Amino acid sequence: MAAPSSSTCDGAMARSFRERVPPLLTDLYQFTMAYAYWRAGRHQEPAVFELFFRDNPFGGGFSLFAGLDDCLLFLRSFRFTDEDVEFLCSVLPATTDPAFFQFLRGLDCSGVTLRSVPEGTVVFARVPLMEVAGPLAVVQLLETSLLCLVNYASLVCSNAARFRLAAGPQRKLLELGLRRAQGPDGGLTASRYTHIGGFDLTSNVQAGFLFGIPVAGTMAHSYVTSFNSLEEVWPRTLAAADGDLDPVDFISLTKGWLSRVCEIVGAEPAKIREGELAAFLSYAIAYPNNFLPVIDSYSVGCGLLNFCAVALALCELGHRPVGVRLDSGDLCRQSVSVRGVFRLCSQHFSVPDFNSLIIVGTNNISEQSMIELNGKENEIDVVGVGTHLVTCTKQPSLGCVYKLVEVRGKPRMKISEDPEKSTVPGRKAVYRLLDAEGHPFLDLVCLAVEPPPEPGVPLSCYPMGAQTSSVSVTPAQVRSLYLEAFTTGQVSHPLSSAAETRAKVQTSLQTLHPRHKRLQDPESYTVALSERLQNLVSELRRGSSNNSNFLLSN
Amino acid sequence: MAAPSSSTCDGAMARSFRERVPPLLTDLYQFTMAYAYWRAGRHQEPAVFELFFRDNPFGGGFSLFAGLDDCLLFLRSFRFTDEDVEFLCSVLPATTDPAFFQFLRGLDCSGVTLRSVPEGTVVFARVPLMEVAGPLAVVQLLETSLLCLVNYASLVCSNAARFRLAAGPQRKLLELGLRRAQGPDGGLTASRYTHIGGFDLTSNVQAGFLFGIPVAGTMAHSYVTSFNSLEEVWPRTLAAADGDLDPVDFISLTKGWLSRVCEIVGAEPAKIREGELAAFLSYAIAYPNNFLPVIDSYSVGCGLLNFCAVALALCELGHRPVGVRLDSGDLCRQSVSVRGVFRLCSQHFSVPDFNSLIIVGTNNISEQSMIELNGKENEIDVVGVGTHLVTCTKQPSLGCVYKLVEVRGKPRMKISEDPEKSTVPGRKAVYRLLDAEGHPFLDLVCLAVEPPPEPGVPLSCYPMGAQTSSVSVTPAQVRSLYLEAFTTGQVSHPLSSAAETRAKVQTSLQTLHPRHKRLQDPESYTVALSERLQNLVSELRRGSSNNSNFLLSN
Repeated sequence: MAAPSSSTCDGAMARSFRERVPPLLTDLYQFTMAYAYWRAGRHQEPAVFELFFRDNPFGGGFSLFAGLDDCLLFLRSFRFTDEDVEFLCSVLPATTDPAFFQFLRGLDCSGVTLRSVPEGTVVFARVPLMEVAGPLAVVQLLETSLLCLVNYASLVCSNAARFRLAAGPQRKLLELGLRRAQGPDGGLTASRYTHIGGFDLTSNVQAGFLFGIPVAGTMAHSYVTSFNSLEEVWPRTLAAADGDLDPVDFISLTKGWLSRVCEIVGAEPAKIREGELAAFLSYAIAYPNNFLPVIDSYSVGCGLLNFCAVALALCELGHRPVGVRLDSGDLCRQSVSVRGVFRLCSQHFSVPDFNSLIIVGTNNISEQSMIELNGKENEIDVVGVGTHLVTCTKQPSLGCVYKLVEVRGKPRMKISEDPEKSTVPGRKAVYRLLDAEGHPFLDLVCLAVEPPPEPGVPLSCYPMGAQTSSVSVTPAQVRSLYLEAFTTGQVSHPLSSAAETRAKVQTSLQTLHPRHKRLQDPESYTVALSERLQNLVSELRRGSSNNSNFLLSN
Repeated sequence: MAAPSSSTCDGAMARSFRERVPPLLTDLYQFTMAYAYWRAGRHQEPAVFELFFRDNPFGGGFSLFAGLDDCLLFLRSFRFTDEDVEFLCSVLPATTDPAFFQFLRGLDCSGVTLRSVPEGTVVFARVPLMEVAGPLAVVQLLETSLLCLVNYASLVCSNAARFRLAAGPQRKLLELGLRRAQGPDGGLTASRYTHIGGFDLTSNVQAGFLFGIPVAGTMAHSYVTSFNSLEEVWPRTLAAADGDLDPVDFISLTKGWLSRVCEIVGAEPAKIREGELAAFLSYAIAYPNNFLPVIDSYSVGCGLLNFCAVALALCELGHRPVGVRLDSGDLCRQSVSVRGVFRLCSQHFSVPDFNSLIIVGTNNISEQSMIELNGKENEIDVVGVGTHLVTCTKQPSLGCVYKLVEVRGKPRMKISEDPEKSTVPGRKAVYRLLDAEGHPFLDLVCLAVEPPPEPGVPLSCYPMGAQTSSVSVTPAQVRSLYLEAFTTGQVSHPLSSAAETRAKVQTSLQTLHPRHKRLQDPESYTVALSERLQNLVSELRRGSSNNSNFLLSN
C-alpha cells in the first residue's frame, strides 16, 4: 500500500515550487504605507516587527510552529520584476512619485535579518515566533506574505499533531485531503505540513514527488462498480511467486477458495456480487503483492468474502495480499469482525500471512471520532483522514499577527483599549525553562539585551494575562528559543527536509508535559515577561497616560 | 481607496498560473486503478463520470458552481513529463509492467469530452454539474484534480454570494483574507472566486495583477504606531490641488483645523495623540486624494478628531480625502457617531466633500455579524471580510464527489446500504424549469437520449429524496443546463474573465426566487428525475436484488 518515494530531502523542484511566492502577493495597503514612508524619508529607518498568535488553536494547550523555511525562501527571492512594478504603477494613485517605482525596482531583502523559533518547535500563544528586522518600508511590505506562509502551515501542522496524539503512537495515519483543500497548492501545503505534524503517509502523488513524503493508496468504489461480471477479468491466469510453474487459472482457483470461505463462515456463495469479485480478481492479478481493496461498495459481508477468497488464492501461489479498506458505518465494530474472519481463515487454512493483513479505516474522521475510535475495541491499523484534517474544521485559521515593536532603536507599543490587543514593546529574546524532569514549564520573554536566565538560579517574572503579580521560578535547564535564520540576503540556517522537521516535531512534543498536551482541557502553559520587560511595558503605559506623546495644545 | 487594475480579462499570466496543475496532483490510487484497468485491457473502454455534491453548503438553499475554467485549462495541459513518469516508476509496485509507463507518456485528454453547467451558475444539491466522458483509465485519473479545482472554488464563491445577500446590493464588499488562507495560492483562489461570488474589491495585489480584480487598501495600525511626534513628518508642506500657489505649512494648517474641530465637538486638544496625528499628516501629504486612515489605533474619539483636522486641511487646499476605517468594537454605533461628526463639520465649516466621505468597517466579520450589521442603524459604506470568508468557517468544505455512471454504453449504479450514497445511473441531460414569473422551480434530470421537456406541456417526474411518488409540473420556460465545454483535446467553449463570470453569477442569482435564496431556513428547491430515469433506477435496483449480477455458485 505504501510506497516510499525515492527522494529523501527536498530537492530543487520542491524549492522552486516553494519559492514561487511573488512579492505582489500581499495587501495593497503595504504598498501605500511603504510609499508614505518613502515620501517621508523614513523608509530606511531600522524597524523591527514580531509575528505571534494570541490563542493556542483548537482550544488546546500548544501549537506547532511551521512555515519558517518557506518564509526564508520567500525572503531570499524577494524582488520585483518589471511587470510587477508596471502593475503597481497602474494601481497606486496617479500622484505617486515615479522615483518610488525606481526604489522598488532595486529592492531586496539584503537589509533584513530574521530571528526565529526553529521550524517544527512546540510553541505557545503570545510568544514572539519570528522577529523581522530591517528597513521600515521593506519589513512592512513583507507582512502579509509572511503571515500567509506561517498561518496555515502552523495551523494544519498543529491539527495533524493533535490527530497523532488522538491516534496514539502506533497507528499509521494517512492524509487524503487533496480534494477538499483550498485548491491545488492548498492541497500540497496540507500534505507537507500534516506529514511534518505526524502523519505517516499521503495519497497526494505530487507531494511525494516534491517533498519526499511516502505516498499510499488503496482503491475507489468506482473501480469496483465498473465491473459487472467475471467475463471482464483479463488476464485470467496468474503465475506463482517463485515463477517455477505455468500460470494457473486464477478465477477457478479463487472460486474454489470462495466456496471454502463461505463454508467456514456459514455464508451462501449465491449472495456474492460477481462484479465486485471480478474487480478484486482483476486488481489482484495486476498487483498480486499490493492487493488492498475497498470492501464496502455493496456490503462489508460480501466484500469480505470476496477479499478472503482472492487473498487465499494469492497466498496459495506464494503472493502476499496487503489488507482491506473500510469506508462507511461503524469502523470499529466492522474491523473487529473483519479481523475475526482473518484469524479464522489463518487458523482453518493454515495461512499465517492472514495474521499480518492490515485494515484501513476512512470515513469522515474528525479529531473527536479519532478519540472515540481510540477508546473503543478495534482492529484498525491505518486511519485515513481528509476533510477535517486539511480544512481544520474545528478552527480553520490560526490568526497570527505581525506587530511593530521597535523603530530607530526605540521600543514601540500599541496600547489598545482592549488589553488583549496591546503589544509588548522592544527587541526580545525568548528562553524556555525546563524543570528537573526535562519538561518545559515556562517561556520567558526578555529584552534582547538582558543576560539569559541561569539554571539553578531563582528569577522573578510576570506571567502574561495575569495582572501585575510576579512569580519566582528556578529552572533546572534553560534553552534559548531563537536562531538567526536569515541575514544580509542569505538564509543563514540550513533548511530541513519534511522528514527532518517531522522528527523534530515529535522530539519537541515528547518533552512537553502530558498536562499541557492533553487534547481537552489542557493546563495552561505559562508565558512570562522578565522584570525588565515588564518595567518597560509599565513605563510606556505611564508615558502614554501622561502627556508625553499627546499633542500639546498650540 | 479602490484602484481598478489595468487588465480587464484574464491574460496569459493568469492562464499560466491556473494551468500549472500537474497531472501528479492526484491520489495514488488513481494510478494503481489505472494500471489495473490497463492490465485488464479495459483502459480504452468508454466510461462516464459525474461530479456533484449531496448537500447545499452552509445550510442554504443553493450553491454556485465555479472552477470549470480551471478544469478546462487542466484538461488541455494534461500530459506527463519524463520526471513525472520516473517518479511514478519509483512509487508504483516494482512488478508494474514497464509498458504501462510508456502508455502514460503518450497520454492526454484528446479522448475526453466534458459537458458541464456553465461557470457561475446557481446550482443545487444532487444535480450533476459536470459529465466527464472518455477512456476509462484517463477519466479515472482526472478525478482528484477535478474535485480539487471545483470544490473550494464553488464553496468560497457560494460563501461570497451569501455575504453579498447578507450585505444587500449597495454596500461595497472588500476581500482581505490572504493572510488567513491555505497558503499563497489558497489566497489567490479565494480572491478570484470571492470576487466572482459578489465581492467588489480585494486587498490581494497579485490577484489584481493576475485576474484584473479591482484592488483596494487602507492603512494598518503599525503605520500609526510607527510615528511618535510631529518631528517625523516630512515634507511638512503641501501644495494646493490647483498648483497655483506655493506649498503651505501643512502642519500649522492642520493644527488650526484641529482646534476648530475640537471646539465644535467639545473635545480637548491636549487629549490628541501626537504620533497618530503625525502618521495621518504624513500619509495625507503622500496621498492627498487617497487619505483613508484607520482611526482606532488608540481610540476612535482621538482618531476621528485627527482625521477631521487633516481632512479639513486637505479640503482647504482643494484635495479630496476619502474616508476612515474602523477596526474594532461596535462598528455600527461608531459609524453613526463618525458620520454625525462628518455632517457637523460639513455644515459648520461649509465643506460639502465631508458629505461624501466613506466609512470602512473591518472586525472579524462573519455571515451572522453581516446580517446583524445590516439589520442595525449604521453608516458603513464598505465592509472588509477576511477569515470567515476565505476559510468558510461555517462549513470549510463542499464535498463534491465523482461517480461512475456508465461503462461501454451500459449504465452503472452504486447501490449503497446508505440510500444517500447510492448514485443515479446513465448519461444525462439537465433542464431547469421556470415558472411564469421567470423563477426556476425545478431541475429535471433526464437521460441524455430523452427529448427535452416542452414549455406549457405537463410532465410527470420524481423528486429526489422523496420515496417513489411522482409529481406533475408544467414549465413556462425550459432551459438546458449543460454546455459542451471540452472535446477532442480542445476547450470548446470560450473561457470567461473573472468580471464576466461575476456578472453571470448576479444574473443567475437574480432569477432565483427569494424563498430559495434566503440565508436561513430556505425552502428546498426540487430536483427531480424524469420518468425514464426513475424507471432505469428501479430496474437496476431490481436487477441488483435478483441474481443477475450475483455470482452463481459453481
